Amino acid sequence: MSLVVVGSLAYDGVATPAGRHDRILGGACTYISLAASFFTQVHIVGIVGEDFEQADLDFLGSRGIDLEGVERAPGKTFYWRGVYSEDMNDRETVQTDLNVFAGFDPQLPASYRDRPYLMLGNIQPALQRSVRAQMTAPRLAGGDTMNYWINDYRDELLATLKQWDFLLINDSEARLLSGHKELKRAAAAIRAMGPRILVVKRGEHGATLFYEGGYANIPGVLLDTLKDPTGAGDSFAGGFIGYLARRGVSLADGTAEPLELARAAVYGCIMGSFCCEEFGPDRFRTLTRDDIEARFSHYRQITAF
Amino acid sequence: MSLVVVGSLAYDGVATPAGRHDRILGGACTYISLAASFFTQVHIVGIVGEDFEQADLDFLGSRGIDLEGVERAPGKTFYWRGVYSEDMNDRETVQTDLNVFAGFDPQLPASYRDRPYLMLGNIQPALQRSVRAQMTAPRLAGGDTMNYWINDYRDELLATLKQWDFLLINDSEARLLSGHKELKRAAAAIRAMGPRILVVKRGEHGATLFYEGGYANIPGVLLDTLKDPTGAGDSFAGGFIGYLARRGVSLADGTAEPLELARAAVYGCIMGSFCCEEFGPDRFRTLTRDDIEARFSHYRQITAF
Repeated sequence: MSLVVVGSLAYDGVATPAGRHDRILGGACTYISLAASFFTQVHIVGIVGEDFEQADLDFLGSRGIDLEGVERAPGKTFYWRGVYSEDMNDRETVQTDLNVFAGFDPQLPASYRDRPYLMLGNIQPALQRSVRAQMTAPRLAGGDTMNYWINDYRDELLATLKQWDFLLINDSEARLLSGHKELKRAAAAIRAMGPRILVVKRGEHGATLFYEGGYANIPGVLLDTLKDPTGAGDSFAGGFIGYLARRGVSLADGTAEPLELARAAVYGCIMGSFCCEEFGPDRFRTLTRDDIEARFSHYRQITAF
Repeated sequence: MSLVVVGSLAYDGVATPAGRHDRILGGACTYISLAASFFTQVHIVGIVGEDFEQADLDFLGSRGIDLEGVERAPGKTFYWRGVYSEDMNDRETVQTDLNVFAGFDPQLPASYRDRPYLMLGNIQPALQRSVRAQMTAPRLAGGDTMNYWINDYRDELLATLKQWDFLLINDSEARLLSGHKELKRAAAAIRAMGPRILVVKRGEHGATLFYEGGYANIPGVLLDTLKDPTGAGDSFAGGFIGYLARRGVSLADGTAEPLELARAAVYGCIMGSFCCEEFGPDRFRTLTRDDIEARFSHYRQITAF
């Protein structure tokens, strides 16, 4: 079943121990939609400037992504530049030019509104809520957020989370949002805010999934080549929701069962791992469904005991 | 089959966000042997001072641990004091009094020498090598080390590792020892130094096991109660080698197969997780085999997909 993805479309400047590249395609919407496109039909909403290359739109289009919701505005595309630490577990933001993204007010095309799945990338919580309100009755809706919104837009964020079925955040954000150090307690507190499905992303260590009455711990996969972790978290989100959309999973009809959610988290880890193998979203240019299934089999092998 | 464990017997002063306790039973040999005692017969070698309490020896004895190799020397027992960070992932050593441990020269009782399993806790590599030389022909021998020996006693350590079948270290030590940032490369380099089985402990994130031709990623378990992480790594080691000894696993006869090793690592994680639930080794006073098997079943559940 089809999926609407809302978030940033950007150009990134990235320096990692494996190299540096400037003005490569980036943004949460880009990574989420590319990763999800291997599982289901994706419709995106985003804003780009006059400098956004046709070749980049063509790349998204080549993955079958519906671009009707992409607005081109006067000015320049959102630009971000960052430098990664030696082990690539930390990064420092050097430059953030919001440009046209500062005026982003996502409007869903009429054809998007009754789509069954919605994934909201990390944007202002009030905008996320506005998008959610434009959807008729999604089978599953949720998204991502970050420390900035948790700290400075807490009330907005809480109002937004109330309407979400799932939330994906990293472990430090989970602790910040909940006020609990212990992950189990943090998860219980966050699930009480609204999202019945919570995925805590843990970088190279995989992810922990919380659902009604339990949790699953999904380890990471060890990469032979790690070039650029930019977008790994968003690619995780794309794999996760893409798999659930493909399977037609919903909280309402009992299809959101633990094993299905855990499998979605494994596909999330897998898409995040592929993302890191090349700079920007380049790995998704050559990736195939067979590559993904081969890595899923590998996952079974490395987690067997 | 029975297991010889060599390492420190100590008193610890520990401060964690859950409380502070002074002069509680500690030391690598203590944790390794207690954890392993739930799987197999254990024979320990260690040194204590005149202040070492009979009640602490009785506790070890109550777990069926053979104390023939414990030497009581004039002076005081090894004392360590540390303070843990808020999230308990880091700790600062405040005091280290080697006391009688400074003169530790482990001599195996005659009855220990033909035992089939050997686990060497973190001590000077030359002493570890001397113990290994005192053993007739163990089915499996190996141990632990730390950054201090890796940095300042590298040649000694390399000579020691050559004779080991397995090594347990944490991820930063694996990077330090190998000179490689990437864990897969680090593991390949370390396995080329001798130990064909390598376990990289990752704290709350579980462990990664490397063997001939592959690896296994074992996630951590989320604790309801985390009081004191002291000894968790050594308890992991005890669960790991204790399980292998119980099963009679050896590299020579093909019984060290991947699933068996992965199961040993899961039992390692389980014993490490129990250890953290109380201060010092107190959890091992009440723990039962049923508790362990219940947590193993829980592991199956939280890792299923």
